[in-house]
Amino acid sequence: MNKLWGDITPDKELEKFCVGDDLAVDTKLLPHDIKATLAHVQMLASLNLLSKNELADIENGLNELSKIVSKKGFKIPEKYEDGHSFIEFELHKSCNKLARKIHFLRSRNDQSLTMIRLFMQQKLELMTTKTASVIEALAEQSKIHKSQKMPGYTHMQKAMPTTVGAWLGSYLDALEDSLILQEATKHILDQNPLGSGAGFGFDGQKLQPNKEFTAKKLNFSEVQQNPMYAGLSRGYFEIILLQNLEPLVLLASSFASDLLLYTTVEFNFFSLPVSFTTGSSIMPQKHNYDVLEIMRGKESIYWGYVEQIHGIIEKKTSGYQRDLQLAKKPLIEAIQLVEDVLNIWEKVVENLEVNKKSLDKAMTPELHATEKVNNSVAAGGSFRDEYMKVKKEYLK
Amino acid sequence: MNKLWGDITPDKELEKFCVGDDLAVDTKLLPHDIKATLAHVQMLASLNLLSKNELADIENGLNELSKIVSKKGFKIPEKYEDGHSFIEFELHKSCNKLARKIHFLRSRNDQSLTMIRLFMQQKLELMTTKTASVIEALAEQSKIHKSQKMPGYTHMQKAMPTTVGAWLGSYLDALEDSLILQEATKHILDQNPLGSGAGFGFDGQKLQPNKEFTAKKLNFSEVQQNPMYAGLSRGYFEIILLQNLEPLVLLASSFASDLLLYTTVEFNFFSLPVSFTTGSSIMPQKHNYDVLEIMRGKESIYWGYVEQIHGIIEKKTSGYQRDLQLAKKPLIEAIQLVEDVLNIWEKVVENLEVNKKSLDKAMTPELHATEKVNNSVAAGGSFRDEYMKVKKEYLK
Amino acid sequence: MNKLWGDITPDKELEKFCVGDDLAVDTKLLPHDIKATLAHVQMLASLNLLSKNELADIENGLNELSKIVSKKGFKIPEKYEDGHSFIEFELHKSCNKLARKIHFLRSRNDQSLTMIRLFMQQKLELMTTKTASVIEALAEQSKIHKSQKMPGYTHMQKAMPTTVGAWLGSYLDALEDSLILQEATKHILDQNPLGSGAGFGFDGQKLQPNKEFTAKKLNFSEVQQNPMYAGLSRGYFEIILLQNLEPLVLLASSFASDLLLYTTVEFNFFSLPVSFTTGSSIMPQKHNYDVLEIMRGKESIYWGYVEQIHGIIEKKTSGYQRDLQLAKKPLIEAIQLVEDVLNIWEKVVENLEVNKKSLDKAMTPELHATEKVNNSVAAGGSFRDEYMKVKKEYLK
Amino acid sequence: MNKLWGDITPDKELEKFCVGDDLAVDTKLLPHDIKATLAHVQMLASLNLLSKNELADIENGLNELSKIVSKKGFKIPEKYEDGHSFIEFELHKSCNKLARKIHFLRSRNDQSLTMIRLFMQQKLELMTTKTASVIEALAEQSKIHKSQKMPGYTHMQKAMPTTVGAWLGSYLDALEDSLILQEATKHILDQNPLGSGAGFGFDGQKLQPNKEFTAKKLNFSEVQQNPMYAGLSRGYFEIILLQNLEPLVLLASSFASDLLLYTTVEFNFFSLPVSFTTGSSIMPQKHNYDVLEIMRGKESIYWGYVEQIHGIIEKKTSGYQRDLQLAKKPLIEAIQLVEDVLNIWEKVVENLEVNKKSLDKAMTPELHATEKVNNSVAAGGSFRDEYMKVKKEYLK
Repeated sequence: MNKLWGDITPDKELEKFCVGDDLAVDTKLLPHDIKATLAHVQMLASLNLLSKNELADIENGLNELSKIVSKKGFKIPEKYEDGHSFIEFELHKSCNKLARKIHFLRSRNDQSLTMIRLFMQQKLELMTTKTASVIEALAEQSKIHKSQKMPGYTHMQKAMPTTVGAWLGSYLDALEDSLILQEATKHILDQNPLGSGAGFGFDGQKLQPNKEFTAKKLNFSEVQQNPMYAGLSRGYFEIILLQNLEPLVLLASSFASDLLLYTTVEFNFFSLPVSFTTGSSIMPQKHNYDVLEIMRGKESIYWGYVEQIHGIIEKKTSGYQRDLQLAKKPLIEAIQLVEDVLNIWEKVVENLEVNKKSLDKAMTPELHATEKVNNSVAAGGSFRDEYMKVKKEYLK
Repeated sequence: MNKLWGDITPDKELEKFCVGDDLAVDTKLLPHDIKATLAHVQMLASLNLLSKNELADIENGLNELSKIVSKKGFKIPEKYEDGHSFIEFELHKSCNKLARKIHFLRSRNDQSLTMIRLFMQQKLELMTTKTASVIEALAEQSKIHKSQKMPGYTHMQKAMPTTVGAWLGSYLDALEDSLILQEATKHILDQNPLGSGAGFGFDGQKLQPNKEFTAKKLNFSEVQQNPMYAGLSRGYFEIILLQNLEPLVLLASSFASDLLLYTTVEFNFFSLPVSFTTGSSIMPQKHNYDVLEIMRGKESIYWGYVEQIHGIIEKKTSGYQRDLQLAKKPLIEAIQLVEDVLNIWEKVVENLEVNKKSLDKAMTPELHATEKVNNSVAAGGSFRDEYMKVKKEYLK
Repeated sequence: MNKLWGDITPDKELEKFCVGDDLAVDTKLLPHDIKATLAHVQMLASLNLLSKNELADIENGLNELSKIVSKKGFKIPEKYEDGHSFIEFELHKSCNKLARKIHFLRSRNDQSLTMIRLFMQQKLELMTTKTASVIEALAEQSKIHKSQKMPGYTHMQKAMPTTVGAWLGSYLDALEDSLILQEATKHILDQNPLGSGAGFGFDGQKLQPNKEFTAKKLNFSEVQQNPMYAGLSRGYFEIILLQNLEPLVLLASSFASDLLLYTTVEFNFFSLPVSFTTGSSIMPQKHNYDVLEIMRGKESIYWGYVEQIHGIIEKKTSGYQRDLQLAKKPLIEAIQLVEDVLNIWEKVVENLEVNKKSLDKAMTPELHATEKVNNSVAAGGSFRDEYMKVKKEYLK
Repeated sequence: MNKLWGDITPDKELEKFCVGDDLAVDTKLLPHDIKATLAHVQMLASLNLLSKNELADIENGLNELSKIVSKKGFKIPEKYEDGHSFIEFELHKSCNKLARKIHFLRSRNDQSLTMIRLFMQQKLELMTTKTASVIEALAEQSKIHKSQKMPGYTHMQKAMPTTVGAWLGSYLDALEDSLILQEATKHILDQNPLGSGAGFGFDGQKLQPNKEFTAKKLNFSEVQQNPMYAGLSRGYFEIILLQNLEPLVLLASSFASDLLLYTTVEFNFFSLPVSFTTGSSIMPQKHNYDVLEIMRGKESIYWGYVEQIHGIIEKKTSGYQRDLQLAKKPLIEAIQLVEDVLNIWEKVVENLEVNKKSLDKAMTPELHATEKVNNSVAAGGSFRDEYMKVKKEYLK
């Protein structure tokens, strides 16, 4: 395996254990790594550490790589231990010895940090857009079924009247509030970690990276000035991101749970089109709402990812430690999961069939018991007395 | 047990099982419940459902109760099933039959929601203040020890030079960013759930609660208009709060882990005053930093509380279900834990002793290997080539 | 606060933080601590480190203490930092200077280990008994309702016929298998940690504890010979115990979830007596099955306790560290939770009302679609062909 | 996508969402599915539902498939929704219409259950073997370094003398005890779920599967007689398995944490060969023990998998629900993780270098303070008095 750090011949089995899924994981992050590398070499050129021509050559090389890695099916070759090594070694092909210059004033630590930061920022923007789409779908359906009566349940028992609009609207409101958390998270992520090197900067050394330069190139509003904070934020920012996206999957799961109950033949308040259902391998009559079960289950998968990253960072002490590598996979899979769930949630809402007949039939008189009390109070009674009077009617 | 809902004689063992720790828990929440009840009855009076005199009597009664419950050692008597019942029944003592009027246009559901919401808001403000205190302590120490050199570690091995100031400053920066999350959480919590009744409002009934009125009385900027969203936010807002306070305990735990390493006799970079240490029951020589271990361990306890509340809400369907009652205890204990940890963290920082001699001695030459490479590159070398040259010096 | 380790005047706030709930927690463990202390002093006497009279005095003192701590409402006075200190200092009252001899050849570490081990053993025995009671209740009801038909559901939709007996029996079988895990756990717990001292034994010292002696006194079948294994097992055995009791609460939660669905008015397959239900503070018609919701929610609380202990032990390195103290509370609360849940589960099963009419009515024809296929195959058809034929009947 | 359940044209996006990673996951389980299918068709033949020739044809077909799926790089083609469909449809190629007969008297539910059960059994056997290998490595090293003195630490501070042998031996003992849990788990897994159909058996139908027949063919000692228990055990047995393998990864993580501390240059008690270390991309002097960090981090990944499966089963009600599909991936990845960790642990132990010089140097006098007390007691003193005397020497 080609190593940036040279001559040791590592034990093959250990190497395999340490690399793990990292190549597959880095494949998804490589575009961001190349983008950040581009900003880095431009910064090196701005310090006259690369000539104009040298910069142009490296830029060409990186743009070339960019095309290669964005091709469908691209995989980092197994001879590299990670995406960072891939970039430096592959650059030799086009730029020759020039490639040996690019890693100056940075480390794989800040390189990773930047790549992951950019990935998280891009994905968070996407999640905000997707959240807005679900909100829109809910708004539309909620409006259409604004006045459709529906029993409200507490303790799984009929409580008081509500409407399909209010039920859908409750998820809409929750999603809108979750956007506040997304904005706060964006604010926190919007800091450039590039230039923090191995987590301790380059203090006292002759040459210093220009962090403001790369911040501008990479569209960061701020610079993470303390390199040790940059280091500390690895894993920790991932937790902040995932926790603040968590409401999305939790709400989707609750929505799915509601629908799984309301689509039983016993309730029959809602349906989904036949093309949204699945059948059974032996029971010919079945129409199942698997899609809702997967929506519900995905939330538990998500929570496990948060748990994994949390477990990793709670054990370590300051400074980069390799367990952090293991946090990349759950991060990427978690983000993909949110995206998938939001897509499907939108679709389910859009295609929700409201069974007016069943809903109307379910609006049985006991749902109005509290109204009866209210009316008696309005007519001059005392609440608890009127409540007790009505209660007597319902005692067996 | 005195019940608001009347005549059924419940099975004693089941009742005990269902009530559980609720009386102890509600004792901590009662001041907020009384405060919200006050706003509620004032609203009822504004609707002419209570006369001026009636209102005054109830206000007196509630103020009286307020004094009783704020006395040290106060406990809700066991004859009540919760704090809500305590208020209504105890009011009979001072207000007689008037007490039977106060529960109109609200339910225990929105009563609980409001009480917990107020509790969370108050505690979140406190946490922001406490966070600021730790930030201040870190700022001061970080300034004092700004230039004290210290080895930076990656993979638990000496990496590059850093300073005590940078190490302390990294926690400071992280805490400052966590305030962004606290602000976002405040924004979300700042909505009045009172008036949502049992989670479905009072639509179609003759009399309606005035939610804007109580919002103003209770200092909420907004009203949670959709009663089903108010219901949905039970437990869910608790998760949002706890997840966004989680960085505080996580950072405290990391800080403690760092110090537990750095206070070993082998590292000996820092100490704490003797009065911060404990001894052993059999080993006469011991000075232990238990306080740091407790700080570290508390984070795991906290995480378990989040897990508990999460587990509760992920299982239920829409509408109040009693498992939510079980979310109150972990919420209260979690918040107390954050408060305790921040108090202690501040104190530990303020009393941190920096062992200059040991730190200086630890600044061994290999920490400057990267600087050597840097200098050679500054003198015209290519990074990877200079790296390899220096590396050879370190190969055995 | 009276300390076993002497003269340092600790910072009051830190002391409070470190002690935390420990006094309340140790109150529950004290009987086991006294029991183990008794065995320990008898061992010291067997080594001639205490005379017969001295032993008798201490035994009397300990027996006296035993009575005191078993009184209802007993609490460890706040002047002590833990139960261990309580015992040694309180013994001075009856035994005077003799008390200063009892801590020889043990440490608070092995004292705690032993106390907790005995607690876990006792409670595990109790859980086995309770499990057997639930099994018995399930067996009886399952037998009675052996032939009562009931729809079997997959994906929340009617699938094939089953019986109430089979449904109840499935939990019975699962509980029986969980006894295998309990037995394995008993086997593991059955090792004497007393004599391991601070986790390193007393090797090379003139006097050695006789671990076989105390093992016999405390009914341990084996001795944990390696003192470092004794130390390692702190927290780790707690995890093993709680994980192997976890099936009980998980099954109880699943059972409760099933019943919450089946007791809706829409399904109405089962009921519980009115005395098992609760009412609403504003909705006079309500009969709620809160007890089932609490059963379900408790499982999440339990899981959080496991999480807490797991988090504590995964962060530490070898050798006692104080975070372990924090593992005692979740252990005790978790065990109490299992006991409560099993008690209630038994009661719920015993009082389950089977609504024959609703169940019979729910046995609609589509439940027999698979049977139709089977019969056609029995008459010579090919499965997939017959399946497709029957399926056509169910396509809209 | 070819479906066993026929004619509905499902929405493509939903289908993709529901299938998820299932094809990749089932690829790993297919050998067990084919094995169980073989037993199933032999059972059908034993009931005369297949002729001798038909059976032979299907057996050939299945054996053919078996070869195909065991080829390196094999993947289930995307036109199938899962491995079960793959088998039935692919059989048509060799067996033609005969394939339409094989799914009689079973469902995908019991097919999955059996496939996963066989997978778990096989892997558990493997884990026992791997555990034994780590035990052996620990035994050997522990024996070699039996008398090498080493400081024992509590609270991260030097406590009392111990030995390298005792330290290694503590992990050995814990692993040996974990075998008890593995045996109990084997006992539980050893039940045949095949014949439980969709979770409700085939009661009342003309033809019944012979569960004893397939149990014998598949080497199960027992039959899961109640089909609803078979259904209930899906996911639940996975939890039991993973919880009882958890000690392995937890111990490995603790061992790694210990070593990460003991291999710091400050402690320097142990080393690993240079071929076990990694370098840095910018710091030429670094030798890092990444392998230990990955061992430690893997434990958190594992715990997240348990969390995922737990979350899935705690939300659902009785009867198969599709979220269970999502439990397959964490199961498979968790098992692979245990295998990898045990392999590496063994290797690390075998290659552990014990730095005698550093260890001897670390055996400073204060480690013997307790011994001093002991000796004074042996000479007639009272423990607490002698302790206090020695303590005075250590007070600053």
